[in-house]
This record gives sequence, structure tokens and C-alpha cells, in this order.
Amino acid sequence: MSDNKNIDMQQVWQQDKDHYIHPWTDFSTFKETGSMILADSDNVHVTDGEGRQYLDGIGGLWCVNIGYARKEMADAIAEQIMKIPYYSSFGHHTTVPAAELAAKLAELAPGNLNHVFYGCGGSVANDTAVRMIHFYFNQLGKQSKKKIISRIDGYHGSTYMAMSITGVKFDHIGFDIEEELVHHISCPNPYRRPAEQSIEAFCDEKVQELEDKILELGPDNVAAFFAEPIMGAGGVIVPPEGYHKRTLDVCRKYGVLYVSDEVVTAFGRLGHMFASEDEFGIVPDMITCAKGLTSGYLPLGATIISDEIYDVISKPQADGALFTHGYTYSGHPVSCAAGVKNIEIMERENICGHVKDMGTYFEEQVKGLIDLPIVGDVRGRKFMMCIENVADKDSKELINPDAKVGNRIADHCQARGLIVRPLAHMNVLSPPLTLTKENIDFLVATLRESIEATTEDLKQEGFI
Amino acid sequence: MSDNKNIDMQQVWQQDKDHYIHPWTDFSTFKETGSMILADSDNVHVTDGEGRQYLDGIGGLWCVNIGYARKEMADAIAEQIMKIPYYSSFGHHTTVPAAELAAKLAELAPGNLNHVFYGCGGSVANDTAVRMIHFYFNQLGKQSKKKIISRIDGYHGSTYMAMSITGVKFDHIGFDIEEELVHHISCPNPYRRPAEQSIEAFCDEKVQELEDKILELGPDNVAAFFAEPIMGAGGVIVPPEGYHKRTLDVCRKYGVLYVSDEVVTAFGRLGHMFASEDEFGIVPDMITCAKGLTSGYLPLGATIISDEIYDVISKPQADGALFTHGYTYSGHPVSCAAGVKNIEIMERENICGHVKDMGTYFEEQVKGLIDLPIVGDVRGRKFMMCIENVADKDSKELINPDAKVGNRIADHCQARGLIVRPLAHMNVLSPPLTLTKENIDFLVATLRESIEATTEDLKQEGFI
Repeated sequence: MSDNKNIDMQQVWQQDKDHYIHPWTDFSTFKETGSMILADSDNVHVTDGEGRQYLDGIGGLWCVNIGYARKEMADAIAEQIMKIPYYSSFGHHTTVPAAELAAKLAELAPGNLNHVFYGCGGSVANDTAVRMIHFYFNQLGKQSKKKIISRIDGYHGSTYMAMSITGVKFDHIGFDIEEELVHHISCPNPYRRPAEQSIEAFCDEKVQELEDKILELGPDNVAAFFAEPIMGAGGVIVPPEGYHKRTLDVCRKYGVLYVSDEVVTAFGRLGHMFASEDEFGIVPDMITCAKGLTSGYLPLGATIISDEIYDVISKPQADGALFTHGYTYSGHPVSCAAGVKNIEIMERENICGHVKDMGTYFEEQVKGLIDLPIVGDVRGRKFMMCIENVADKDSKELINPDAKVGNRIADHCQARGLIVRPLAHMNVLSPPLTLTKENIDFLVATLRESIEATTEDLKQEGFI
Repeated sequence: MSDNKNIDMQQVWQQDKDHYIHPWTDFSTFKETGSMILADSDNVHVTDGEGRQYLDGIGGLWCVNIGYARKEMADAIAEQIMKIPYYSSFGHHTTVPAAELAAKLAELAPGNLNHVFYGCGGSVANDTAVRMIHFYFNQLGKQSKKKIISRIDGYHGSTYMAMSITGVKFDHIGFDIEEELVHHISCPNPYRRPAEQSIEAFCDEKVQELEDKILELGPDNVAAFFAEPIMGAGGVIVPPEGYHKRTLDVCRKYGVLYVSDEVVTAFGRLGHMFASEDEFGIVPDMITCAKGLTSGYLPLGATIISDEIYDVISKPQADGALFTHGYTYSGHPVSCAAGVKNIEIMERENICGHVKDMGTYFEEQVKGLIDLPIVGDVRGRKFMMCIENVADKDSKELINPDAKVGNRIADHCQARGLIVRPLAHMNVLSPPLTLTKENIDFLVATLRESIEATTEDLKQEGFI
């Protein structure tokens, strides 16, 4: 927490409105209302420009895992700046934090995922994964093996390639994507399976669909399958039991690489440093991560690859070519120092242990909202949860989109001192992992009140 | 400067070698020698893990413009972390530094380039530019107008799309790129023009080539032309006088957007905050920038667009779609706070004025190396220079690539306390902008000695 009283918040609001193009903006409302300024913070709370405090139910954006404004982080970052604030790691230069963090990630990642390529976030981590996979198959002489399969409602980022892999169809509207290289299969969302279908039959069908898609495209043309252990921005979709293991088996059968996008799930959100093996029992060929890696304090992402892939891509080529990929800020020493300190804090404070305990309580409490008349589904695990609002709990029919039910609930929460994320007709929760029982009780009670207040509004306006 | 004596540098070296995949790595030598650790720094000097100090002739990688390890930067960054270390700016959230920096960039950028989209570096700034351009033409109902033209030896980054725009053919080896959307025209390198051709005729030809390419692809299919004011990683290519203005005119004639990639040239390297207008007299439709924006202290990039483009992309769409593009770390408050402080320092210390003065001296002194027998060309402006080494100054024939002349010169420099960047047979200089006359004299004298020593080596080994 600190002093913002010399800042003219009205001026900041105007500067933002006039000059800042926000991600995922609805310009129709932005041009009228401008932005809410987040000016201060402390552990699980943030404060707006007018001094109102909120419990942050979304951890910034699935990322402030260790909580806000930790002095240790500021000190470690300032210290690295006074050592060396930047150096390129092109070719054969390195810095202490880049090397230390790579070794630490290799230690924490499952199986023999021992080699780390850095970027500045999840989009770039996935974009890099694609480029590495292409390089890998070119090195193996399998020039046709390039296509990527991902899932409808999977979210993998927003570079041209990462957005092409992303399967959230709403996000493609108005933009262009790559359609030759990337192919989508359906979303393994148990809530939306046909009414008469058993969960086992649903899982069989989704696994079979992956195999069918590989066969349709030809195994010699399919390079990789990208999947989040739990889909994030697609609405916190937890696939049926066994889905991960069985899709990995299909990939292995056809020599298709399995990329686990752990941008949201890694670094404690589900109670593990990485969720692929510890939560879902699979060791993928690559893991991409970001967000929790620094708890969002500084931009950093990583693409972590297996010994087998490294052995191929690091084989010196006959024609003297380099591994010509990477970014000025790959291995940024200050971002990496933030990553090292963040992981040190998580380990020292046993934050994964806290999540196993308090995250379980959180999951139970949020799942208790299922008794509300417009709540059709509550899903997720630990500190990664989603509430899906519906007009009819039996038919699962949605409320008219014009009602903007997700936004309404978020607005009601905000008026009561809680930030939750609206996502179409849903609301998403991904709080800092340091939440206490008292914080959780406040959050769930406030959310319940807000859903009830929204339900009243919707009734009065004839939406339900 | 600070204390590294508790760090086991041998262990760091081993961690790096075992776990860190560097950008642009030559694995054949990396696996033998590992990396040089950069552990400390102060203004224009960096120090390796064994305590040897070097004058940094490359500014980290064209980026540490205000010099290393500035306390003011560490303080501003730590202060922002203690306010709020992260918040999403998706939708209608903002933070004070993100808004302030956007307003400042709008003030500094030429013409009516008044709207700022943030990413974490130059690659993403260019990738975003492509996505925005697609969105822009889709909004205008010009769905076919999507192709990008750029130049051989232009460098625009390393995401899948940014590397496709990049025209450095060496960088494409072993990887895949997008070949439908992106088309390259030739490099306007005056040094490599035909012996009998006048510079004016050469310029005419290059401008005509752009027009021909637009006509060949069809003006209705060409969306944008991407160009660096001075090509950076392609070998510091300064196009002939008038080239920029005339290529912009060609773009205007066919409704093709002009994107000026100022990742290297902005924030003082040529003595201006932006070089497009102040150095080359053009106001493009978009400017992409990164590096000098924070002097590399933290990852940050920006795509700055005109009022006209903003008006189109911000027009609310009938079907309720959002502007569904952006990154978790778009507008990162700590990176933006670094940008605000960096620009404040540059303005307060009149670093652009210093570059106009000392950068001119630097340019003159480096150009004096042209008398050396293997130096074929010395080019660039102010603190952005390149030396091209050749076997024969008249025929401009290159030295056998096996001689690795660029690397040899860099190694000789390093042994003498100077870091310069090898780039194939060339060496690139992009020092911190705070260089003094004394620093410059040391740099140029050391470089001269190193080129002479290399020349001796090459003679003894029969390469020249």
C-alpha cells in the first residue's frame, strides 16, 4: 500500500480514455464510461482511484498467486536492477537469474522436461512451442508433420498463431486466423453433453474424436495437440476423469507431441507447481507457462521441453544454421529474478499446501451456490472456479445475451467490494492463493447476494 | 554495481548449459563452451562472472539507452510494485502508469498517432500490428486486403507472424513461415547496388519495386508495408535519401498502410524520440516500438496507431463483438512505470541532445575505420552503426564464411574489454546513449586494434 494522493485520478481516467487501447474492449461502453483505475493493493485486496477497496476474486487475471505488493518481491527486483537490469541472452550470453530459474523449472517440471525457453507471457510461450515443433520435425526430416490440433473453447493466447490455436470462436470474430495449420476438435465439457449420455460414453466420444481427427488429417501431417489441463478462458472446463491420460495415449500412438498449456494451472492454482502430472497423471512433451511464474509481478513466460525434443533441436545442423528463434527479452534478468523469488516464497510459505487446504474449502463453498435458481453449473478445482448462469436448470437454456448476466453479477459484486470476472453468461474466480477462510466466507456470501440481486433484476425486466 | 561474491558462478554456468535454451544459439559451440555470465553493470560498463569489466558496445541488444543500473529506475519500479504490481487491463480496468505512458507516447509520436496498444516487446508489437490491420480492413468491409509487404533483410521479430514478416533469409532456415500473407521486396542497401548504378537510379528502382509488387498482388489485396527507418539486425542499412518519403507516397497511392518499425530507432538512438518524422520526414500510419521504451529495464512494447485507424477499429460492431485481442501483460503497470521513468530521465538529461552531439562524434570516429584493408563499408547514423568486413574492397567480395570474421573481431574486442556484436561477416554497434568522448575513443581504438589483429590472423590462416 502506498500514497496516491498526489495523482490526479480524473486526469489519469481521461488519459486512459483518450490514448490507451485496452485488450478485449467493448468500445461502445468504453467510450462512455472509460476505465476503473486500480491504484493500490495489499495481499488479496486492490483499491481503486477513489480509495474504495475490493477483495480481488480474479488475482489480476489468474495470476497474482502470492498476493499483491509484497516487499520481498520489490526488493529482489530492485536488487537485480542494480546488478544488471538487462542483457541479451542471444548466442552465448547469460545472466544469473535466467540460469537459476531454468534449473529450478527443470527441477519442478514433471518427467524429463528439463529445458527452458523464455518469452514474456503465455501467448508467446505457445507461439514458440509451435515454432519449436516445426523446427523439431524439420530436423527429423518430417517436413509434412506440421498441423496442430486444439479444442473448441481452449484458450492459448493472442499472437496470430496463438489465437489461431485458441478455439474460443467468439475471440475470432472480426480477425483473421491461420486455417491451414490449425484444426479444432470439440470441447470436453461434461455439463453440455447430451442429456441421455453417460459421462463415460461422453469421454469415449471425445477421445475418439481426437483419434479420428488425426486419422482424417493423416498422422504424417499432425505435429501436436495443445490442451490446457483445465480450460481457463473457455469457462473453466474440467474434462471427464481419464480424458487427459487417454488423449495422451492417442498422441503417443501417432507420434503426435502433447503440449500442456499450464499458463493458468501451474504455480499453485490447483495446489501443485505443475498440474499435468500431479493433478492429472500425465507427463506431456512440452509445458507452456506464464502468469503464476512471477505471480504476474513482471512479464515472463516459458516453454519447457523434454530431453528428447531438446536432443533433436540442439543437434548442430550441417549447413551451419543457428536455432534462429527468440526475443530480446527472452531470459530477461529482472523478470527471471522475480520468478526465482516468487517460487522461493511459494515454497517457503508452502502455498501449495495452503491451496490443498483452503482451496478445497473454497471449492466446496463456491459449489454450494448450485442451489441458486439461475446457477446451472459450478465447476473447477481449488482456486480456479466458474459459475455458469442459465435461464432453466433442467434444459440448461441460456438467459438472453442482452441481459448480460455475467456483467450484472460482476457489477453487483463490485458495488459490494468484490471483483469477479464476467465471461459471457458466466463468472470466473481465480483469486490470490493466499486467501484466508474469512476472505473465502466474505467472497462466497457476497457472490450469493449478488447473484440473488441479479436474479431479482432479471425477473423485473422479464428476462427470466 | 553490487555484490555477487556469494554466487557460485561455476554452478550458474552449469545450470545455464544444462537447462537454458538461448535465442539464436549455435549449439555446436554452446555445448562445448556454455555461456559468458553477465553479472554486474554500471552505466556503460558490464562485468562478467569472474569480475572482468567491459565497455558495452551493444547496449544489451540495442536497448539500454539510459545506461545500466540506474537507482532512479530501481526505485520507480519498486515503488510501483508496492502500489500495485499487476492488474489486467482487459475491458475497462486500467492502472496509473499504463494511462500516463499512453498519453506520453501519444504526445511524442508524430502526426496523429495518438492511440497505444501494449505488448511485451517488438515481436509482439509487430504481430499485433498485423492483427489490427486485418481487423481494420475487415471493419471496412475490405476482406481481401490482407497481404503484407516487407523487405529482404528487414527484421521484425520472432513470433510466427513477426518472423514471417522478417526478411532475413538466414533466420528462416529450419523453421516454417507464413508464405501466403507475406511478400518480400529487395533490400535498399546502397553498398550492394550494381557498380555502375547511381544512387538515384538505385533509389528509383527500389521505390518502383514496391509499386510493382503492390500491382502484382493487386492493391485490393495489399494491406500494409512494414519497414524499419534504418534496418537493424539486417546490418544497419540506411536507404538512399528520399526512399522513405517516396515509399510512403506509393503506399498512400494504393491505400496501403505504412508501418514504421521503430523498435531500434526510437527513444534516442538517432537523437530523436521517434526517427520516422524527425530524421526521415515521414508520418506513418503505425509505429511499433519496444527496447528503448524502457531502456530494456523491463519488457514492454507498443503499437501506436493513428486517429483514422483508431476511429475504424473502435467503432462498435453490430454483432456485439469485442476487440478480442490482447495479452495478460498488455499495459503491465510495472513495465509502464519503467517506461514513464525512462522517458522522464531522457527528457531531463536531454539524452537526445547528447546523441546529436556525441552520437555525431561516434559516427565520425567509427566511419574513420574505413581505411582498414578488410573494412568494406561503415554505415549507420549516430549510435547505430555497422562495419561490413570484406575480402576485397573493390569487388566487395566476402571473406570465406568459415573464417567467421565477425566472431573473430568480437572475440578480439572482448579480450580487450569491449563487447561488439558479430552479425555474420559484420559487426554492429549500438551502445548506451550516455557514452562520453573518452568512452568513444576507447571503443573505436579497441575496435581498430581488434580488426587489425583479426586481419593478421586471417592472413596467417590464408583466408585473405
